[in-house]
Amino acid sequence: MQTVEGGVTAPKGFRAAGVRCGIKQKGLDLALLASDASAAAAGLFTTNAVKAAPVLLSLERVRAGVARAVIVNSGNANACAGPGGLDDADRMTQLAAAGLGCPRDEVLVASTGIIGRRLPMEIIEPGIAEVVARLSRDGGVEASEAIMTTDRRPKRIAIEVELGGAQVRIGGMCKGVGMLAPNLATMLAFITTDAAISPEMLGLALKRSAEVSFNCVTVDGDTSTNDTVFALANGAAGNRLIDSPGPDLEAFQAALDTVTVHLAREIARDGEGATKLVEIRVNGAATDEDARKAAMAIANSPLVKTAIFGEDPNWGRVLAAAGKSGARMEPDRTNLYFGTVKIFERGEPTAVAAEEARRPMLADELVITVELNIGESSAKVWTCDFSYDYVKINAEYHT
Amino acid sequence: MQTVEGGVTAPKGFRAAGVRCGIKQKGLDLALLASDASAAAAGLFTTNAVKAAPVLLSLERVRAGVARAVIVNSGNANACAGPGGLDDADRMTQLAAAGLGCPRDEVLVASTGIIGRRLPMEIIEPGIAEVVARLSRDGGVEASEAIMTTDRRPKRIAIEVELGGAQVRIGGMCKGVGMLAPNLATMLAFITTDAAISPEMLGLALKRSAEVSFNCVTVDGDTSTNDTVFALANGAAGNRLIDSPGPDLEAFQAALDTVTVHLAREIARDGEGATKLVEIRVNGAATDEDARKAAMAIANSPLVKTAIFGEDPNWGRVLAAAGKSGARMEPDRTNLYFGTVKIFERGEPTAVAAEEARRPMLADELVITVELNIGESSAKVWTCDFSYDYVKINAEYHT
Repeated sequence: MQTVEGGVTAPKGFRAAGVRCGIKQKGLDLALLASDASAAAAGLFTTNAVKAAPVLLSLERVRAGVARAVIVNSGNANACAGPGGLDDADRMTQLAAAGLGCPRDEVLVASTGIIGRRLPMEIIEPGIAEVVARLSRDGGVEASEAIMTTDRRPKRIAIEVELGGAQVRIGGMCKGVGMLAPNLATMLAFITTDAAISPEMLGLALKRSAEVSFNCVTVDGDTSTNDTVFALANGAAGNRLIDSPGPDLEAFQAALDTVTVHLAREIARDGEGATKLVEIRVNGAATDEDARKAAMAIANSPLVKTAIFGEDPNWGRVLAAAGKSGARMEPDRTNLYFGTVKIFERGEPTAVAAEEARRPMLADELVITVELNIGESSAKVWTCDFSYDYVKINAEYHT
Repeated sequence: MQTVEGGVTAPKGFRAAGVRCGIKQKGLDLALLASDASAAAAGLFTTNAVKAAPVLLSLERVRAGVARAVIVNSGNANACAGPGGLDDADRMTQLAAAGLGCPRDEVLVASTGIIGRRLPMEIIEPGIAEVVARLSRDGGVEASEAIMTTDRRPKRIAIEVELGGAQVRIGGMCKGVGMLAPNLATMLAFITTDAAISPEMLGLALKRSAEVSFNCVTVDGDTSTNDTVFALANGAAGNRLIDSPGPDLEAFQAALDTVTVHLAREIARDGEGATKLVEIRVNGAATDEDARKAAMAIANSPLVKTAIFGEDPNWGRVLAAAGKSGARMEPDRTNLYFGTVKIFERGEPTAVAAEEARRPMLADELVITVELNIGESSAKVWTCDFSYDYVKINAEYHT
């Protein structure tokens, strides 16, 4: 397995582009991603009861398992904007389909940005004509820029693996970065691959992959109305078709997981206002659910997150967060580590000096491990710290 | 019903005091509250699996239903401090009991502050002698100061009602202010009354009262290891003994609720870094649990709280928070108000201007109401906004 350049256009037979049509105050804000031929397609969507119009439209459309393209705007979520929102989302797909010469039903759509306003279709319509015209084999870079909102940097990756007698590539791009919690987030992620794989197997692999990647990221415990993950597989690599479980699917899964885990970690690292990527590991839990509950409670605790921002080894807050999670926990059996430094052992603080406990907190990445010593279940969650800038961004991000 | 001065020493037969023994960097940090005679007692404690030593000791002790006094320190939580923590908690009660001339089992104890350090008994021991000596009928004021940690102001109240043929008083004091979520918080609250009421009826009334007061407050969704509420009733008012449900209990309940709701709102108003008291109302939910889940999800959303700090009417975040809560919700039936301004009605933003939507946010208190229009259940929750100062306080509060 090796990393290659190009993001979503690294796999064969994909083109992409990003343009500015003026939805955001500055920067690119409209992206198109297209496969030269119809591709197997799969999607995952927010579990929020309030779903944006593009989510409502795309979740119906992706059921067919076939797609040619994804049109995405940033700057406006097209959520809670009234019944006209669905018309706008559909119109975006219609225009993109017309430009590409494919059925409207084969175009998926996603939006991210402010909630509660109608899309400015008068600027999006000419923008779609422009983005169709700009499609290119190296457009993955600008497309990854056009889907950003408060992201500080674009997030993309592509890898190449040998699979089923061919060199297969998987590319991905995503955007974060607030209103982020598991079962997706204001997270848009787009995966492309030239692997030949059936829609069913692609859907299975994507679902499994999300469980170890996107669903393990939390920035602020909020879940967006717009979360969307799409995967498109066009078969251009010429590998043996993956249409049932088996070694080829497992190999594809491993490669896909590499892509999604990378993107998920990048989302946590670039959480709003984040200064650090934080990995929370909980081991020895009674059940998988307990492990996840404890890890998420720690990852979402504002007190833990502000202490990490302050580089203050306030481990009591970590234990208190795990303790309130509802997971079975006995302090007298619990161990806690910052990095590799054991801070707390079976009910008592260790003799470690505060300065040594603090040392792992000074790096850009911090791993916090809680050993419950009750059972065999583990969980891993990625998050970030909670800084002045989180407040600044979210107090000032305009409605 | 009328308000009177004095806090916990307003009811007859109670004395209190606060002294500085040097646990905190500055200010009073040791409080004693004592009834002249043995009192009926009830207590409520944190649901966190990690319980501080004074909680473990007091929850056993209060089962007897009788207490004379409560000794409280601030600045050190006596939590996760190893097995010696229980000895320290017990020693505090022993010294207070010796000073008061009562059995050690009749002294309850509570602590709040930093987790993970042994109590500095060498300064607490002389402090207890001093606080016993200072006990006075007007010590409720200084006691309410001695239990503070990052509280910006002491919180106390006392009321007088006619009940069962006598003038009965109920006094209360509490401290907040971070690591605060329902099912208590780093919240210590102490209620005194000169009512004659059995321990069983006092316990029932206290539990009910917490459900509409302390359990409806959330500052940051974190739950402390030390949360404690005690109520002591010494019967000095000479009312008919309340020893069974009936009109006297209901009258006592109403008075008690006035005290606890006042304290709960004061805790939210003085949340760490708070600039506003925020009341979240959810009406028309399918079930009581749905109403509470939706209200809590809104109250705990960092995105909602930062928007309120920014006085930005970002109502989409409120809907998104309700939508992720798991409560049954249909956007097309949902209405949303800031104060009395209707912002969103049955799936669509109203025509209200941004400036008008913002107006209710400029006051010190903001009420946000969500009408789900599905069922008949309601919930009310108090919280505060999320400011730079929350981050500052919690990034710098030293371990």
